[in-house]
Amino acid sequence: MNTVKASICTIGDEILIGQIVDTNSSLISRALGEIGVRTTRMVSLADDRNEIIGILSKQLKDNDIVISTGGLGPTKDDITKDALAELSGSVSYVKNEAQELIIHEILHARGLDVLDVNIRQALVPDNCEVIVNKRGTAPIMIFRFPASRFGHPAVLYAMPGVPFETEAALGDVVEDIKNHFKLESIYHKTIMTYGLAESALSELIAPWEDALPANVHLAYLPNPLTGVRLRLSVYDADETTESLVNGLVEAVKPLLGENLYSDADDSLEAVVGRLLKAKGESLSVAESCTGGEIAHLITTVPGSSEYFLGSVTSYSPEVKKKVLGVKAATIDGCGIVSSAVAAEMAEGVRRLTGSTYSLSTTGWADSYGDEREPAGTVWVGVSGPRGTQTRRFRYKGDRKRNIERFAASAIDFLRRYIIK
Amino acid sequence: MNTVKASICTIGDEILIGQIVDTNSSLISRALGEIGVRTTRMVSLADDRNEIIGILSKQLKDNDIVISTGGLGPTKDDITKDALAELSGSVSYVKNEAQELIIHEILHARGLDVLDVNIRQALVPDNCEVIVNKRGTAPIMIFRFPASRFGHPAVLYAMPGVPFETEAALGDVVEDIKNHFKLESIYHKTIMTYGLAESALSELIAPWEDALPANVHLAYLPNPLTGVRLRLSVYDADETTESLVNGLVEAVKPLLGENLYSDADDSLEAVVGRLLKAKGESLSVAESCTGGEIAHLITTVPGSSEYFLGSVTSYSPEVKKKVLGVKAATIDGCGIVSSAVAAEMAEGVRRLTGSTYSLSTTGWADSYGDEREPAGTVWVGVSGPRGTQTRRFRYKGDRKRNIERFAASAIDFLRRYIIK
Repeated sequence: MNTVKASICTIGDEILIGQIVDTNSSLISRALGEIGVRTTRMVSLADDRNEIIGILSKQLKDNDIVISTGGLGPTKDDITKDALAELSGSVSYVKNEAQELIIHEILHARGLDVLDVNIRQALVPDNCEVIVNKRGTAPIMIFRFPASRFGHPAVLYAMPGVPFETEAALGDVVEDIKNHFKLESIYHKTIMTYGLAESALSELIAPWEDALPANVHLAYLPNPLTGVRLRLSVYDADETTESLVNGLVEAVKPLLGENLYSDADDSLEAVVGRLLKAKGESLSVAESCTGGEIAHLITTVPGSSEYFLGSVTSYSPEVKKKVLGVKAATIDGCGIVSSAVAAEMAEGVRRLTGSTYSLSTTGWADSYGDEREPAGTVWVGVSGPRGTQTRRFRYKGDRKRNIERFAASAIDFLRRYIIK
Repeated sequence: MNTVKASICTIGDEILIGQIVDTNSSLISRALGEIGVRTTRMVSLADDRNEIIGILSKQLKDNDIVISTGGLGPTKDDITKDALAELSGSVSYVKNEAQELIIHEILHARGLDVLDVNIRQALVPDNCEVIVNKRGTAPIMIFRFPASRFGHPAVLYAMPGVPFETEAALGDVVEDIKNHFKLESIYHKTIMTYGLAESALSELIAPWEDALPANVHLAYLPNPLTGVRLRLSVYDADETTESLVNGLVEAVKPLLGENLYSDADDSLEAVVGRLLKAKGESLSVAESCTGGEIAHLITTVPGSSEYFLGSVTSYSPEVKKKVLGVKAATIDGCGIVSSAVAAEMAEGVRRLTGSTYSLSTTGWADSYGDEREPAGTVWVGVSGPRGTQTRRFRYKGDRKRNIERFAASAIDFLRRYIIK
């Protein structure tokens, strides 16, 4: 079966000048991927009639489906709609009554007058089908082109660009695609690793990767903060695919060992949270160089109040001594960035809060550093029922990036301690 | 003068499948806009040799400049580099010694072995110029095409796709563009406001805006976390432009009052940091629902250790009582999310650390809420030489978004207290 191919086109000057980041394209391509439609390209283009006609035509020629978003606002919809009418050979507009009703409703609810420019949004080229936009004023237009036009049957979906509206209408567009195209069945499975660079990971699992069945595609998706995500994709999936993929995941687990932290699409802090919640255990944190980032990450997880008691960010040595009970002699003798200080910080905050586990950091996030430890170094401490452990990590980034990597490494160090 | 036109091409399957949102394109187009280069298109394409050659050629034909990002990772750089070699007519690769050194440095700093796949990243087609990538292993390649090739002189910059690396190398790319193209002179000035919505702001400064000279363009750039940024742009700028714009900024200041927090492109936490540093004063923080986000923001500012003493994240009532000295009767009588608890938290952490000022938060970031205060409510407290003040803010977002808005509102509340 031929893969159904799609191109996503976002129309609007505000994207091209960098004013807004385009989040619609990734939203749409994820939804397409779920039903086995492959996104071959994404294009952002200007609110310009010739650009719209030229680029959409080219994308329709190269793809089965084109989804455009944007360009349909009340102040500029004429350009896009006229361009779509010309592209599709429409000679007149018709009013969509259902959308006109919604336009009235939405504007009334906002206490605004219904102006001519608003009502004009209910007009669509006479050769398109309409999906009503329930969250906004511009309807979704569907143009179906016969094979004679672009060498193959092709469909253009013109959607509004406001993410809140795009999101709501996407389900209907996906349904229409499922009804009009014969789709491959596609199956994805993601597993998360931390602690190995892409190249080292690749060497480690080479025997397994080399033995993958031909229809299983492996992608390495590295991210410095979440580690390397491994994604297995199977095209032409059938009822045997899930167990095939689960078997492959089980087979790679012994190679990955503790570097694997989730066989779903998960964050380190969510995994740590689940481990703690399952055992009814609790956590506290003592941060120095990470300055609150660890506590912030831990508390972005919904329900974290069930296991996270609190944290102390001891940016000054006085707070380390007074609140956490770090000994002056330790700081003077070992240095503020040291294994011993990390250990005393972890033990101090655990004593203070009575938590099952505690996690600490002390390091140099940027250019300071000292003769013992250069900038980019962090000592991480974990204290818990099996005693206190520390480990040093080194990175080479700017302040912000080092803080983020320190925090991720610390949370992973805690995870490894908990699962031991 | 003809406008210099650019196309931004992001290469990588991970964008097309929607795994990551492309933030590089908006970063780059903003930087181009600052020097007067107009971005005409953005294209995301697959890690596929034919796609890369075909699309980059088309974009080079339609534009003066093409900037590509991505496709240069150690496991897949061969495709992109081979495609670029073919596109540019290169027949051999040469090793860039400076980049090879950095590859060794980066991997050593991470305690990783230097593999062949890593060293291969230092190889570049023999007809390109190189900008060394100081933050990553893949160098930036510059291909200059004569007018004979695409009908006009054109330049292709191939950059790495990791945003941290793209960001760092962008300055050098912009410099190269400035040196090789005759650009319109454009002058931008940004001022930052917090506390007013775009529409309210627009009403407030209407008299000033209506009187702006015709060649001065004003843009409202709203962001829920940094407030509304106002950007003044003057095209065809000359030596009189800077003083003209500075005069305009001075004229709008009385209208904006305390809502203006910076007449540069600045963050709230950087502004607060400068205020504290200038007076030799210090800060501590007591967080509940913001879970470390405020401390994190404060400490992302370089040099923050000069004024930030530390923070306590008291996620559990016990930590609020034991560490911060919040009275049980206050929690029971007023509720955990209340003005009184915010005040006692601020006073408690100020007492604990001896700081000049302290800032506190207690609120409901998501669906919890109670009968007194619904979800999305935060009470913020500030304590300092002029006593303790509290204020309530309410937002309607998800957990993550509410935490971010609570933190921004709290830091702005502190700023207003300090400048009083």
